[in-house]
Amino acid sequence: MAHVQVHAEAIDLDSPVLVEGLPGAGLVGKIAADHLVEEFDMDYYGAVRCEGLPEVAIYEGEQSDIRPPVRLYADGDNDLLVLQSDVPVSPTQASGFATCITDWLDENDVLPLYLSGLPEEKKDIPDMYGVATGDGHEYIEDQGIVPPRQGGIVTGPTGALLYHAGQTGLDSVGLIVQTEAQFPDPEAARVLLEHGIGPIADIDVETDALLERADEIQEAREELAQRLHEAGEESTQAQSIRGFQ
Amino acid sequence: MAHVQVHAEAIDLDSPVLVEGLPGAGLVGKIAADHLVEEFDMDYYGAVRCEGLPEVAIYEGEQSDIRPPVRLYADGDNDLLVLQSDVPVSPTQASGFATCITDWLDENDVLPLYLSGLPEEKKDIPDMYGVATGDGHEYIEDQGIVPPRQGGIVTGPTGALLYHAGQTGLDSVGLIVQTEAQFPDPEAARVLLEHGIGPIADIDVETDALLERADEIQEAREELAQRLHEAGEESTQAQSIRGFQ
Amino acid sequence: MAHVQVHAEAIDLDSPVLVEGLPGAGLVGKIAADHLVEEFDMDYYGAVRCEGLPEVAIYEGEQSDIRPPVRLYADGDNDLLVLQSDVPVSPTQASGFATCITDWLDENDVLPLYLSGLPEEKKDIPDMYGVATGDGHEYIEDQGIVPPRQGGIVTGPTGALLYHAGQTGLDSVGLIVQTEAQFPDPEAARVLLEHGIGPIADIDVETDALLERADEIQEAREELAQRLHEAGEESTQAQSIRGFQ
Amino acid sequence: MAHVQVHAEAIDLDSPVLVEGLPGAGLVGKIAADHLVEEFDMDYYGAVRCEGLPEVAIYEGEQSDIRPPVRLYADGDNDLLVLQSDVPVSPTQASGFATCITDWLDENDVLPLYLSGLPEEKKDIPDMYGVATGDGHEYIEDQGIVPPRQGGIVTGPTGALLYHAGQTGLDSVGLIVQTEAQFPDPEAARVLLEHGIGPIADIDVETDALLERADEIQEAREELAQRLHEAGEESTQAQSIRGFQ
Amino acid sequence: MAHVQVHAEAIDLDSPVLVEGLPGAGLVGKIAADHLVEEFDMDYYGAVRCEGLPEVAIYEGEQSDIRPPVRLYADGDNDLLVLQSDVPVSPTQASGFATCITDWLDENDVLPLYLSGLPEEKKDIPDMYGVATGDGHEYIEDQGIVPPRQGGIVTGPTGALLYHAGQTGLDSVGLIVQTEAQFPDPEAARVLLEHGIGPIADIDVETDALLERADEIQEAREELAQRLHEAGEESTQAQSIRGFQ
Repeated sequence: MAHVQVHAEAIDLDSPVLVEGLPGAGLVGKIAADHLVEEFDMDYYGAVRCEGLPEVAIYEGEQSDIRPPVRLYADGDNDLLVLQSDVPVSPTQASGFATCITDWLDENDVLPLYLSGLPEEKKDIPDMYGVATGDGHEYIEDQGIVPPRQGGIVTGPTGALLYHAGQTGLDSVGLIVQTEAQFPDPEAARVLLEHGIGPIADIDVETDALLERADEIQEAREELAQRLHEAGEESTQAQSIRGFQ
Repeated sequence: MAHVQVHAEAIDLDSPVLVEGLPGAGLVGKIAADHLVEEFDMDYYGAVRCEGLPEVAIYEGEQSDIRPPVRLYADGDNDLLVLQSDVPVSPTQASGFATCITDWLDENDVLPLYLSGLPEEKKDIPDMYGVATGDGHEYIEDQGIVPPRQGGIVTGPTGALLYHAGQTGLDSVGLIVQTEAQFPDPEAARVLLEHGIGPIADIDVETDALLERADEIQEAREELAQRLHEAGEESTQAQSIRGFQ
Repeated sequence: MAHVQVHAEAIDLDSPVLVEGLPGAGLVGKIAADHLVEEFDMDYYGAVRCEGLPEVAIYEGEQSDIRPPVRLYADGDNDLLVLQSDVPVSPTQASGFATCITDWLDENDVLPLYLSGLPEEKKDIPDMYGVATGDGHEYIEDQGIVPPRQGGIVTGPTGALLYHAGQTGLDSVGLIVQTEAQFPDPEAARVLLEHGIGPIADIDVETDALLERADEIQEAREELAQRLHEAGEESTQAQSIRGFQ
Repeated sequence: MAHVQVHAEAIDLDSPVLVEGLPGAGLVGKIAADHLVEEFDMDYYGAVRCEGLPEVAIYEGEQSDIRPPVRLYADGDNDLLVLQSDVPVSPTQASGFATCITDWLDENDVLPLYLSGLPEEKKDIPDMYGVATGDGHEYIEDQGIVPPRQGGIVTGPTGALLYHAGQTGLDSVGLIVQTEAQFPDPEAARVLLEHGIGPIADIDVETDALLERADEIQEAREELAQRLHEAGEESTQAQSIRGFQ
Repeated sequence: MAHVQVHAEAIDLDSPVLVEGLPGAGLVGKIAADHLVEEFDMDYYGAVRCEGLPEVAIYEGEQSDIRPPVRLYADGDNDLLVLQSDVPVSPTQASGFATCITDWLDENDVLPLYLSGLPEEKKDIPDMYGVATGDGHEYIEDQGIVPPRQGGIVTGPTGALLYHAGQTGLDSVGLIVQTEAQFPDPEAARVLLEHGIGPIADIDVETDALLERADEIQEAREELAQRLHEAGEESTQAQSIRGFQ
């Protein structure tokens, strides 16, 4: 039953890149994904109706259309998809959700970019690392993205997505960026967009608006970030494992 | 097994409008729906026997008939149905409930009006907004009902009903009205009846009795409203999402 | 699997009346039912083995037979059955229990009398009201039993039994009596026996012993009554709904 | 899947008696059963692999064999079986456990002796009572074992075993002995062995060692007994029901 | 669905020994297993994808490959397998996990060495004991490994693995070593490696590095050990049963 319900059949996509924007540590994925939808004026493409996702109704300002809380936006010119979510995915549902999404990506020849924050003390510019499943490592090597210096674990729905990509042999890339743990972190999202998503998806993303709107984002999303922080290890985040061999 | 059990087969309905009256924020839907049943002296039409609804027995004063807690009333002359409920629908059961109801509405060519309160500071007269699924937007445009100024989310059983209407492509209308969060709000129910339900269902509803009885309603339903308020985000309410794009 | 296991096949019953004696508010049903078993020296008739009932072993004083906690007693001369229970039925199991019992009653042409206390301030003699499903209203009208003055709700296993009787169209009678909420109430049980059960089942019940033994009952059952009171709305009780339309 | 896995097929048993030794109030059953295994130097007979039993590994001192936590020991000469357990059976698993055991007893023509403590003030020598299912009452009458003076209830896994024996019509005997509620009670176990198990199983049990080792038992099992006491009504115990009819 | 997914088909193993390294009391198994992987520079062999295991993504330092949290490493020259885990196995999932692993071991003719800490006061050098299922006792006798002096119980996932080995008749060895309960214990892991794993697997393990790195291990794994200690009896540990017969 659970599936991705495509509404905009007319949009033509050829082996697109998907940017995953589920809420997680620092909201880095959600901020980056939402920014792409707005910046490229992307079209509503389809509804993600995987079992276990909250069945709530979303509406946007000045529009009457009801949409599901997790959905896809597309930009046919850039062969780009974004997975946008207004709700966190419950850790107990992460496995079914990941199976549902992974099957669809596999069937539609999509290259997913999974995004996760790594809560750590960071320098001026947060470090970004790349991990991969299948032949995904080619994309990160091509762009000179380095692997993590230290071993670690990605938890939450994004961890489950990477786990399932590994299980099915799907090509995928994971981008891990140092982030604030408790607050929305537009700067980390900017690093993802400029140094990871942009080069791999071969798109040119203007990120000035992102930083100009930093205060607004900060305020708007603090509650969501706080809630995710309390969920702790079970929500999406990367975490170093000290002494890992 | 779960289904709507129609008892009054004799009542003839032609593409009727259904007014959903589940308890939610401000009890706006329940107050409006109960008022219609009384004002139009509507007939008991059928029992809603969807899985997960509380199996309790309801009786009315001065009558011996036992009825289920969620049920339909009909007015054949006005092609009007009301979904009346004396119990809240548990959030964990909302999905099954919404599937069960949506299927029946679809099979019987019914246009549902879903009602939700939006807990906000309000002016003298509460604002009312319209959202829609399928071709439902035609009804709100025809009556000059405006979309929400700001993006938001409808949760609880009414959110699930809108979600499922969107999934199956059913035409439906959602009416969202500013309301008191913690107390029953007959004034918000009046706005729904006069500016939304009345025009769309093409009925003329007298609402004086509603306001005269405001005190009585206040007292009678305060406990139910309080309980729903405590259930918080999981019960039916609309909620603005700040910074939503 | 779940079923009623009849042990006393030899007892001949012709469209019998069943008196339901599950523990609920004021223990009114249990006190009335237990009294009938003793007063008419009724025979052990069968075991109620519905799914979800506690699987514990009951023994009576001076006897070695093990019996289940919910069981039927019969009086062939009076065409009378009593459902006796030594354990409360958990609210989460009430639905399956009610389905199991209702099917059996329907198959065996039994008229059930469901008993519920209504915790309210009461006069010298508690008021008793009648509700019904199917053609059950004929029995209460014939005996001049009045419907409830005010609308309300019957919860708990007895509420579920009435709900299922309504769903299947089984003839049934519900007797609702004003009762003490927290303590066993032999006086309310007496009213049920003399004004409701006796006339409808066409039996003459001596209730002097009931009142003589009031003190003993009070002491013996206080713990069970207290536990049910704490379970609150979820256990069997009738409850008025103020402002109900 | 769940079953009794017999390892010692060579031991020949002819309509044996089984002594059930699950931990319960006063640990009376476990102390008696463990004593039989040691006193008669009984052989490991089989593993009880019923669904829901804890899957842990048990080892005995000076031996390397791993055994399951619930298992059978046999004495071919005395046609005797003992059910020994090193873990309590969870009340939520009692029903499946009882079904699994009862089926095996029925298929193998075994007469079970179920043991339960009755936490009560007791005289010098604890009273012991007999209850039964099927034709089990013959065994207790033959040995002059009296029924309980007062009605009551046996809860926990032993209650479920008696319940299922009653349901399937299996001959079984329940021995109920007055016991300490919170501490291991070797004296009560001695009464079970001398006045109940010994005569019915037609074996001569030396119990001096039991009492000599009372202090050791006290210490060794106090923690288990304490844990069972805290589980309260849900663990195996007999309990009088005051005012029971 | 659940299974072991072998990635390194090219590695040839002939009736290999598997060293189980799940986190448990003192982390003795995990420390020993991780040490083998590093010391013998073992190859990533396969993913353990049993139902109920956490679906998270693991990455190692300076590498971009995503791996599952529970996985196998192999050394073809030594016919050696190691089960490495970066996550604890939840007690509620232990049964399904044990079934999944046991089936694979059985099908692939693998001799598992199960490792458990026994939290006890210990002498200079911790005592180590051997237990076994099937013909596993031959291996411990051949190496002069003694059985436990006192009876006891192995709980947690390792207890479930031993339980299932016993049920299916799989040859297996359990090595139980005295350990610190709350802290990682490299010394106990050294005893396992030198006196148990080394002789049975016929490998020569250098353990100097283990002790040199004791401080580092201590720090790195303290949090995991602490978390396991809090999980108490439900996590893997051996525990003596006083007065066991």
